[in-house]
Amino acid sequence: MDPDDLFGALYARGGAAEAVSGGAWLQAMLDVEASLARACAAEGLIPPRSAEAIGAACDAASFNLAAIAAATAESATPVIALVARLRELVGPEHAAHVHLGATSQDVIDTAAMLVSRRALEPLLADADSAARGAAALAAEHAATQMAARTILQQAQRSTFGVRAAGWHTGLREATALLRATSSARLAVQMGGPVGTRSPEIAARVAADLGLAEPVMPWGAIRNRPAELACALGILAGVLAKIARDTTLFAQNEVAELREGGGAGRGGSSAMAHKRNPVASVAVLAAAKRVPGLVSTMLAGMEQEHERAAGAWQAEWGTLSELLALTGSAAAWGADLLGGLEVDTAAMARHAEGLDGELAGAGPLIERALRA
Amino acid sequence: MDPDDLFGALYARGGAAEAVSGGAWLQAMLDVEASLARACAAEGLIPPRSAEAIGAACDAASFNLAAIAAATAESATPVIALVARLRELVGPEHAAHVHLGATSQDVIDTAAMLVSRRALEPLLADADSAARGAAALAAEHAATQMAARTILQQAQRSTFGVRAAGWHTGLREATALLRATSSARLAVQMGGPVGTRSPEIAARVAADLGLAEPVMPWGAIRNRPAELACALGILAGVLAKIARDTTLFAQNEVAELREGGGAGRGGSSAMAHKRNPVASVAVLAAAKRVPGLVSTMLAGMEQEHERAAGAWQAEWGTLSELLALTGSAAAWGADLLGGLEVDTAAMARHAEGLDGELAGAGPLIERALRA
Amino acid sequence: MDPDDLFGALYARGGAAEAVSGGAWLQAMLDVEASLARACAAEGLIPPRSAEAIGAACDAASFNLAAIAAATAESATPVIALVARLRELVGPEHAAHVHLGATSQDVIDTAAMLVSRRALEPLLADADSAARGAAALAAEHAATQMAARTILQQAQRSTFGVRAAGWHTGLREATALLRATSSARLAVQMGGPVGTRSPEIAARVAADLGLAEPVMPWGAIRNRPAELACALGILAGVLAKIARDTTLFAQNEVAELREGGGAGRGGSSAMAHKRNPVASVAVLAAAKRVPGLVSTMLAGMEQEHERAAGAWQAEWGTLSELLALTGSAAAWGADLLGGLEVDTAAMARHAEGLDGELAGAGPLIERALRA
Amino acid sequence: MDPDDLFGALYARGGAAEAVSGGAWLQAMLDVEASLARACAAEGLIPPRSAEAIGAACDAASFNLAAIAAATAESATPVIALVARLRELVGPEHAAHVHLGATSQDVIDTAAMLVSRRALEPLLADADSAARGAAALAAEHAATQMAARTILQQAQRSTFGVRAAGWHTGLREATALLRATSSARLAVQMGGPVGTRSPEIAARVAADLGLAEPVMPWGAIRNRPAELACALGILAGVLAKIARDTTLFAQNEVAELREGGGAGRGGSSAMAHKRNPVASVAVLAAAKRVPGLVSTMLAGMEQEHERAAGAWQAEWGTLSELLALTGSAAAWGADLLGGLEVDTAAMARHAEGLDGELAGAGPLIERALRA
Repeated sequence: MDPDDLFGALYARGGAAEAVSGGAWLQAMLDVEASLARACAAEGLIPPRSAEAIGAACDAASFNLAAIAAATAESATPVIALVARLRELVGPEHAAHVHLGATSQDVIDTAAMLVSRRALEPLLADADSAARGAAALAAEHAATQMAARTILQQAQRSTFGVRAAGWHTGLREATALLRATSSARLAVQMGGPVGTRSPEIAARVAADLGLAEPVMPWGAIRNRPAELACALGILAGVLAKIARDTTLFAQNEVAELREGGGAGRGGSSAMAHKRNPVASVAVLAAAKRVPGLVSTMLAGMEQEHERAAGAWQAEWGTLSELLALTGSAAAWGADLLGGLEVDTAAMARHAEGLDGELAGAGPLIERALRA
Repeated sequence: MDPDDLFGALYARGGAAEAVSGGAWLQAMLDVEASLARACAAEGLIPPRSAEAIGAACDAASFNLAAIAAATAESATPVIALVARLRELVGPEHAAHVHLGATSQDVIDTAAMLVSRRALEPLLADADSAARGAAALAAEHAATQMAARTILQQAQRSTFGVRAAGWHTGLREATALLRATSSARLAVQMGGPVGTRSPEIAARVAADLGLAEPVMPWGAIRNRPAELACALGILAGVLAKIARDTTLFAQNEVAELREGGGAGRGGSSAMAHKRNPVASVAVLAAAKRVPGLVSTMLAGMEQEHERAAGAWQAEWGTLSELLALTGSAAAWGADLLGGLEVDTAAMARHAEGLDGELAGAGPLIERALRA
Repeated sequence: MDPDDLFGALYARGGAAEAVSGGAWLQAMLDVEASLARACAAEGLIPPRSAEAIGAACDAASFNLAAIAAATAESATPVIALVARLRELVGPEHAAHVHLGATSQDVIDTAAMLVSRRALEPLLADADSAARGAAALAAEHAATQMAARTILQQAQRSTFGVRAAGWHTGLREATALLRATSSARLAVQMGGPVGTRSPEIAARVAADLGLAEPVMPWGAIRNRPAELACALGILAGVLAKIARDTTLFAQNEVAELREGGGAGRGGSSAMAHKRNPVASVAVLAAAKRVPGLVSTMLAGMEQEHERAAGAWQAEWGTLSELLALTGSAAAWGADLLGGLEVDTAAMARHAEGLDGELAGAGPLIERALRA
Repeated sequence: MDPDDLFGALYARGGAAEAVSGGAWLQAMLDVEASLARACAAEGLIPPRSAEAIGAACDAASFNLAAIAAATAESATPVIALVARLRELVGPEHAAHVHLGATSQDVIDTAAMLVSRRALEPLLADADSAARGAAALAAEHAATQMAARTILQQAQRSTFGVRAAGWHTGLREATALLRATSSARLAVQMGGPVGTRSPEIAARVAADLGLAEPVMPWGAIRNRPAELACALGILAGVLAKIARDTTLFAQNEVAELREGGGAGRGGSSAMAHKRNPVASVAVLAAAKRVPGLVSTMLAGMEQEHERAAGAWQAEWGTLSELLALTGSAAAWGADLLGGLEVDTAAMARHAEGLDGELAGAGPLIERALRA
């Protein structure tokens, strides 16, 4: 969490936020330059010792992030200043072998994919943890009767296990989509200035960095980042659904669920008796910011010619926000689902007198947890 | 095209718009009721002859759409009036066997998936046609030199074939995603009033209607429609990119591409000499309306309990619009890419004097077209 | 309501939907042509009898909407076909005086503003009716104690009158903004082919049609439609807040409010005992579709040169939807607030034991209702 | 600019970004606490010397932002930790007089309005500077002939002054809306725990902080922040239009405008001959991120009861982004419009042979600049 971010506890919980920081982007760009140098050496385009020297110099600690950020005002890309500093660091013997045949977009797009993959690790770990929480609730409460509610009206009996199994299914499907997108669609970009570089270098960088190799450079064909944005949006949506449910269950008049978190969690500055559902609020605070960001990514697919003027550059911050916010929602979701206190008596009380066959609930839950 | 829709030529070209009309929705709901009856008969819950009678009555021509639409004001769902009329049609012997064990959401959600699958047929056919158009351009112009442009500035030489291969790749990837989403994620909903119905009926209806069978009812877990919306948004984004490019190529000062369409296409009410890029405009007019609709679908994933109050009901119109608009963009995209007139001399003139190795262009295009 | 629109009861209640139909747009365009002819006659540019003949011919009943809609595919504007038919109707003597000095955009933009103003009439009448409903509740229940709830937790005592006064204030402010936008910002467009026509004609048409006169043509400077979209979005947001509250109050476990609507309203296809809050659902179904549409209008402000390729043409359908959906939310909001049944005993029960000084409630409400 | 923000040169130019930093929010909250204490003293609720002691302690330098941010995880609000620390700082004599009768939302909402007003100062100064740049171009080039372009096709002659006057009008109208919104709609929130506090304190705090006094507390009636978001969105939209135009004018094949910025501005990491339109790119990169954020604010108006669970907390980051991004677009817009190099010969060349009366251009521009 950025210490200057007063609201980071809501928006930037978990590991994704740090993985999309300026420093993380900078290191990812350097990782791309290092990998490019190795690929060029392997193809015989530069001497191996240049690749080694470049690789050794690609440490963000040797770069002044603020200076590179400021230089971005001159060219709308941080890569020019980064390459200049990298050439300075490796010295005249190797300078000409830095960034060989690449363009800013190669570095930034490949770095964006690296940043994304790195941010997805803690994000998916948290989402998995949330899913496990839901699964545990589903198993434990397979037979815990409760009132199912449609259009916010008590409808028929169900069990809390069925509800939790639904949450689990949503999380499982959303994480599966995100994983598939991550492994198949986070690809290198290494097409050179206008996308016509032959693909050997791209293939080597892809193998080296563990990213996919695209069929074509995708400089202005933005399916890949858009798919990532969408998969994040869908996970955020599932988490929002779960948090919305828990705020409703936590109402005093319903009181079927209560968030955990221990003494002190959920206090109010004015009303000492309150116990606010903090994790649910945090999930919703982060997740509600996501759909607008996805629309920005989709609207930004309209990119001109070989590289867009504006729509491409708008992606960097948008994608970073999407990862950080969805990551925060996932981390809070794990906290939420790991600590829920279930009032089975209240559930039973509200289910009393409602119709509803429950014979199928157990098998339905088992099937959902096996899937 | 709805004859009352003055702007339908832009927003509702192709077959998708009609496939999402009120009449198409009504027939899809009836198809669900008929299939449900067959499934109930197969499970021994209702007599086979009731299933037959119900199936025979499920013809939209026997239903007054306006009356059902008006009755929706009483219950926020058209299903109650539809079921009442269906019971009337089948008569007292079979009336109790209509809609057995189902709820409004079962019918509407399954119908939404049927409507979507039906709308995707012409939509994907048009998108495929657009992709073929791009492939043909890529093959024909593999070696046609042109100026690649980054940030709207001439950058290096490329070939028009490379550009068209990029368009093709974007379309191919977007249609592949949409097809995968269609076959795996368009699923029946048949969970009964609160999602606890045992899954035999769902399995039969799925097999009957050719839809997927979900692990769990997804009444308030909306990954499935959200994934469809996203896949549509991505296809619309690729189409917008292509249309944006063609408007830029068609500028008088660039004049490297001109839309086809024959005499009379592209005229102006005030300036007789103009030839406006009508298909590009139409693609953009439809596609620009899509990202906001996707955000509505994602924001609407926050659904309460077993059935939402508002977020669910907002999906019906939004999904219909998404299908119609993306379908229109695809139909116009096919028209656009099928008729482009290429001025290779203008391309060559602008490429003169630019750097750029083009040895890799041919293999790159071949690889893209093989993928 | 379009009889083919199965969901029109939710999305198209009230008068706004019809006021944005294709037929209404067509008549508005004809009204603009008629007004233009009168202005040209007054400036001495065409004979008065031509203006009369043109005015007499500008009746949508003489135009084949479907044919004009189909012709839009040739030019991305319905105006060319409309003008051709109008010239045919007035005959050779007057044909050359039709559409004098105007361009498609003059006609469509001015028509869009006319359509908007006409749609705002029933929309604002319904919103005012909703506001009156809220005011009546505020006055009647100024002292009706209830639990105020923060973060969905009972917090302190308040009165239902305070809540309703808040609703009223939100509606009053939103309608005031919409009225101010309507009177000051719905302006004619009459700049000629590229916006350089001298302003006398615009001034006359503005006076004639009761629209504002802009300082400059606004063909690609889209503040005006964007402001209208925003004001609609804000009204929809207030209505959504009220409907969200009422769905919460209507929960069985809270049961402090119940929607009116009489017997039969709010039934379920599967659960006869339910009484769903239909009006709240309908408000939310319509209002949730609005924010994405507003973002489309704002993103569409990025328009090229004197007339955009796509962003402008995307506005027509988006603005129509915004008016229809916000109008429907307003009409349902009036229904909702006019019929609420208040269970003051339930309110009192939930307020018991909560802290909270209520001395200020009465004056606060009075102040709100006076504002 | 946050030194950790690698892309801040694009997204956070100008003064608005710093005005919405965590530190700025913290100081604004403390300014609210100090003002509240003064108001309580003036009303005789606390001793004047307590108000003085509290005021003296309300300096962000005495607060550990990271600690307060971390504590936010316990209650979903930073106010509890802030108040605790403030009580510690003022000592036992005054501690009970801190935050008297207020709630977290009073502090955060009023601080949000203060932060907004402070961020609007540099933002509007930059937007005014951009408008002056447009006005100067309009005056200087009132008679500079150029080709007006509709649907990206040369249409008729106009003058560059007319175009620049249109830009000016858009900026002038957008800044006027933003100023009106700022002065009338940025209001204190001081309703106490559930909005029923009598308004004397609110009136005093409003006068003290220079904010408007609302008729009612607006804790869950969010017209005010939504209106601010919309006005920002409209300004961003105008800036995007101008930047889009300049990228089109700067194409090599058009070459009628070139960005200023001096040697070194606009270089490429791979192509030394390029001169990219950096300011236009930066305006678009920031402005394209805005519409999605506005939709988040509008969708977030659906807030539950007296204080929302999630929708309210999502506003803080969204509003901050909106101010920073629009501020950055405005700062870059001022840079862009202040430095444009006009190639009048290229303009004349493209206008040759086009129709178009230009007699009205001069008066039209004069009228626009006088408005």
